[in-house]
Amino acid sequence: MSKASHVASPMLKPEATIGILGGGQLGRMLALAAARLGFKCHVYAPHPDSPAFDVVHRVTRADYTDTEALARFAENVDVVTYEFENVPAETATFLAARVPVLPDPKILAITQDRLAEKNFVTALGIRTAPFAEVASPAELATAIERIGRPAILKTRRFGYDGKGQAAIRNGSDPTVAWRDVGGQPCILEAFVPFEREVSVIAVRAGDGAVASFDVTENEHRDHILKFSRVPATLGAQGAAEAVRIAETIAHQFAYVGVLAVEMFVLGDGGILVNEIAPRVHNSGHWTIDGASVSQFEQHVRAVAGWPLGKPLRYGRVEMTNLIGHEVEDYRRWLVLPGAAVHLYGKAAVRPGRKMGHVTRVFLD
Amino acid sequence: MSKASHVASPMLKPEATIGILGGGQLGRMLALAAARLGFKCHVYAPHPDSPAFDVVHRVTRADYTDTEALARFAENVDVVTYEFENVPAETATFLAARVPVLPDPKILAITQDRLAEKNFVTALGIRTAPFAEVASPAELATAIERIGRPAILKTRRFGYDGKGQAAIRNGSDPTVAWRDVGGQPCILEAFVPFEREVSVIAVRAGDGAVASFDVTENEHRDHILKFSRVPATLGAQGAAEAVRIAETIAHQFAYVGVLAVEMFVLGDGGILVNEIAPRVHNSGHWTIDGASVSQFEQHVRAVAGWPLGKPLRYGRVEMTNLIGHEVEDYRRWLVLPGAAVHLYGKAAVRPGRKMGHVTRVFLD
Repeated sequence: MSKASHVASPMLKPEATIGILGGGQLGRMLALAAARLGFKCHVYAPHPDSPAFDVVHRVTRADYTDTEALARFAENVDVVTYEFENVPAETATFLAARVPVLPDPKILAITQDRLAEKNFVTALGIRTAPFAEVASPAELATAIERIGRPAILKTRRFGYDGKGQAAIRNGSDPTVAWRDVGGQPCILEAFVPFEREVSVIAVRAGDGAVASFDVTENEHRDHILKFSRVPATLGAQGAAEAVRIAETIAHQFAYVGVLAVEMFVLGDGGILVNEIAPRVHNSGHWTIDGASVSQFEQHVRAVAGWPLGKPLRYGRVEMTNLIGHEVEDYRRWLVLPGAAVHLYGKAAVRPGRKMGHVTRVFLD
Repeated sequence: MSKASHVASPMLKPEATIGILGGGQLGRMLALAAARLGFKCHVYAPHPDSPAFDVVHRVTRADYTDTEALARFAENVDVVTYEFENVPAETATFLAARVPVLPDPKILAITQDRLAEKNFVTALGIRTAPFAEVASPAELATAIERIGRPAILKTRRFGYDGKGQAAIRNGSDPTVAWRDVGGQPCILEAFVPFEREVSVIAVRAGDGAVASFDVTENEHRDHILKFSRVPATLGAQGAAEAVRIAETIAHQFAYVGVLAVEMFVLGDGGILVNEIAPRVHNSGHWTIDGASVSQFEQHVRAVAGWPLGKPLRYGRVEMTNLIGHEVEDYRRWLVLPGAAVHLYGKAAVRPGRKMGHVTRVFLD
């Protein structure tokens, strides 16, 4: 698809307005990065208490299916981007007919579907965990025979932070898993005994220039990212391979903006792609404080048609997510030497909700 | 005054709203720092194209004398602070009767008047350039006899970036200088043959805790800050003395927030106070990218009643102001390795107008 769908970035003037679909913390941090560069932002989101609403020039509170509101939004912005990959395809297509939408909505269609994403990746000669398509209980039985146990059943669409997933262990009943995920089109994925999880935050400009941040090592808790550290515990060769994989994907998508690729590192050094996020990513939050140009700014630069930055990493960096009620401990973090505390301004604390994060840079 | 005017900081909740008087780049950067901590901001400023309007929850566009608008503003915020020291005293007093205003408006009365400020500083045993009060051409003649030439005539009020100043050199006619500054109440200041200009960005919390960033060395061009570097070329003893001076002033003011003290370093190592700015300061912009907690965040923490941060400086730092048409070169800075570019989103470029700045951190 790299040739057919190439979308040139507009070359925005500093006083231009960037439209952002989605009003969560990613939209908020995108807007804060855009503000550093002098841009105005207009956030479009359905929820009245969207955290990104508080830091922008203009907001539209409307559903993603409200074509009147979308048309007005398109008229008032110079480019549209998004903070999450589950923007309805129709919304993106409707907007793209009126104003540049970056990254290209066609990429959403692939990354919104685990099966299409995995097929895309493996077609590039990049490894993933063994997987099989599952559209019925009968197909699930066949898939288990092929993939083996333990394995994970994942809905093809709308999964995040562990939602839409069910484990199939030795002796467990597959029909329970099938029911747990709602009996939707799925993939069955082999359980991979990985040594560590890493991610690469890559950015690609409309002219084909790419830049990647140093490989990040990630720890999840209850399927939610809890902790990241940079650099990852990975040899120079492994790190180069991880970056090569992310940049290959970015090029093949003719991508414009920040792309995050989550990977598993195996005991033998092999690297498998786990998931692609066509957006700024939690595992790149360390770049706000740990680098001279953040993932958010790189994304803004790319969609604005501005040259990518050449970030300097200031030191070894650790990032800790504040999840749910952990945020209530914020005063402890505020007084920690060298800690950079970020709170997202979310009205309600809910278990599992990302409420903030803390970054620490170490100069050792 | 330290006891009488002590104003306790409110202890704001993360969802609180901070009111900011003034909508320039300092207000904008204050708001961006407040947003990192989860606060909402409400900016009050008279100019419709105020850069800070674009990054906040709510704005009031009204004159500082509009008591109706001020009363509504006070009702909608949990604390008020300001980005510039020339807030009319009546405005600050009007607001302070309704909502906590920090730093204490009484401090404005001193720092708005060069004579009061210098008297305050010298009463603390801190040196300034020799100065004399001048209220008439006759007093100017007497002052010149006492202070000598060359000297600088400065209006007591509303001077900044070299405005309201006139040099009196050997052979020049003092009456021209008197006319040039508009025949207003002035001070005559001896010209000090300093070796370098430095500044200390100090912050004081309501509970008396203080923190100072490392001493910054500054270079001006046409009376406007052009370049800052950290650390300053100053021995450990000189740096400690500069910090001691700034913190002494902060304590004596019972100050809450960030206070910038500009100083001259003489050839013999002596340090004179040049000017006090009761606000965040251009020479502290390097702290956004060069430290884990910026001057803007420290100010927000102090006025919010939150504990001060313990900033780590990431390396040697340089900051360059983009003044007037220099900003049009922004693409050159964008691609400089390690450069952090800040553009203020000002609609019109004017000579002498601060349009942006660039920070570079060096890990050598």
